[in-house]
Amino acid sequence: MNIQDELLVAEVRRRSLRPLARLLRDIDDDVDAVNPVVQALWPHGGHAHIVGITGPPGAGKSTLVSALIAGWRARGKTVAVLAVDPSSPFTGGALLGDRVRMMQHATDEGVFIRSIATRGALGGLGPSTLEQAGVLDAAGFDVVVIETVGVGQDEVDIVRAAHSTVVVEVPGLGDAVQAMKAGILEIADIFVVNKADRPGAQTTVADLRRLGMMAPRQDGWRVPVHAVVALRGTGVDPVLDDLERHRPLGQQGDRAEARALHGIRRARRQRLDRQLEPWLRTTEAGRALVADVVTRRLSPREAALLCP
Amino acid sequence: MNIQDELLVAEVRRRSLRPLARLLRDIDDDVDAVNPVVQALWPHGGHAHIVGITGPPGAGKSTLVSALIAGWRARGKTVAVLAVDPSSPFTGGALLGDRVRMMQHATDEGVFIRSIATRGALGGLGPSTLEQAGVLDAAGFDVVVIETVGVGQDEVDIVRAAHSTVVVEVPGLGDAVQAMKAGILEIADIFVVNKADRPGAQTTVADLRRLGMMAPRQDGWRVPVHAVVALRGTGVDPVLDDLERHRPLGQQGDRAEARALHGIRRARRQRLDRQLEPWLRTTEAGRALVADVVTRRLSPREAALLCP
Repeated sequence: MNIQDELLVAEVRRRSLRPLARLLRDIDDDVDAVNPVVQALWPHGGHAHIVGITGPPGAGKSTLVSALIAGWRARGKTVAVLAVDPSSPFTGGALLGDRVRMMQHATDEGVFIRSIATRGALGGLGPSTLEQAGVLDAAGFDVVVIETVGVGQDEVDIVRAAHSTVVVEVPGLGDAVQAMKAGILEIADIFVVNKADRPGAQTTVADLRRLGMMAPRQDGWRVPVHAVVALRGTGVDPVLDDLERHRPLGQQGDRAEARALHGIRRARRQRLDRQLEPWLRTTEAGRALVADVVTRRLSPREAALLCP
Repeated sequence: MNIQDELLVAEVRRRSLRPLARLLRDIDDDVDAVNPVVQALWPHGGHAHIVGITGPPGAGKSTLVSALIAGWRARGKTVAVLAVDPSSPFTGGALLGDRVRMMQHATDEGVFIRSIATRGALGGLGPSTLEQAGVLDAAGFDVVVIETVGVGQDEVDIVRAAHSTVVVEVPGLGDAVQAMKAGILEIADIFVVNKADRPGAQTTVADLRRLGMMAPRQDGWRVPVHAVVALRGTGVDPVLDDLERHRPLGQQGDRAEARALHGIRRARRQRLDRQLEPWLRTTEAGRALVADVVTRRLSPREAALLCP
């Protein structure tokens, strides 16, 4: 590691805003290489509570995150947020949406918020989200929040990255959402029914509680369900208490190992995908393979067996 | 290929219900191997119109699919549906939800419907969905529908698998959904605003039309927006017309090549993932690597470089 890298490591550990923001961007721009600064920072992490927040669009996740930040700050904790933007997988463009609500914390030095594009994974974790969270951990933030939109693979990704996962719902999204919940139930460590001043909130809370009792956890954790009005900060404190209570379970051995396995799998897949792409597009053998699949001489699975 | 396999190929091409259902299940159970029956069937496909239907939970996708089936049948077309169930990535359990509404077609021999579990990809395409669609194509169905729940990676997957993709929305899901649409816009070939008898439907239709005009397609296609009440079959015919109109664009050269690339990438990733898993879990080197990530001696990306 050269002297520039050493200086950057020191600045990030001091939580200097601009160097930190720049490093996060660099990680995102250069997903191919192992960044020596990240590697040097990595052993300094392991102290933050990594909290995942997920739920369907319109559930008020950003508003909830903003309310949680206020609560953590009142308890003397520093907070970093990685808000994963729904972005086009084709153009790479990102939209900020109602994330501006978080801006009330913009002048607070104990709070760091980054909206990150997902590049090729609409609404899900970006290729570098896990490393970015690791850097924020190493920078010394007490809490690192990863906020994602999503019903789908994204939620599985987040539970494999976070120590504790909050699933946000809203009253009255209908039967189809209820049906989803058997899956979501195993992802949520804590349920928040946001916008709980709306009609139907009590039914949604009761439904989730019933579902929670139907699926006891191996680690003995009983998934709590909280009615919250994030916009007014109502009901946020008990969520913070439960997050603190859940933390040791989320950091224990088997979950730590599952996170490591998932991280390795993810990083390896990205590397191999990136090597395959130019081979398929530019080499003679690769182009012939693609042509064979287009003309149905080979199925994709047969073709995959012939890839390097 | 042995004689049993040859008989199965013949039965599937005759669209015999039980052999077809059994083959689809076998493909799903045995994702590791290349199935000789699938390979023998593969060259017979290429005639079906592969239609993706996606959208958030509660949008009434299954009801829409049911209404579309009725319309296609009235036009003399046979239809197969792969409905991807939201299933738990942890238990593998699947829920049927309102898919029962499709049951009205259960006694129609020109209609084949399978609910498939997603195994490890909550709400997204299963590991074998693309091959299953290929088998239904080879069996001679005129239309093969892939229905998925999802806001996320799933939608990217579906657009890469289907010739034409219908994105279903409902009125009044709020600002966050609006923000998502810049991404969804590039995925949708056709927009359906379902439950269009609800308040706010005209606003949603107008919003989507405006967005559509903001993002012209390279192939000249202008994304149409249809107001539909699927439960009553209202507005379904123009959707069928537009699907027919879009079909040649979806099947043309560059989209066919993109589909082939995506299929190869997906199949290869599955194979490599499946090889990595036992190495990480059971070999001495693999277990040491995982332990190094848990104790933060290595980052996941460094560890991935050391995988076979």
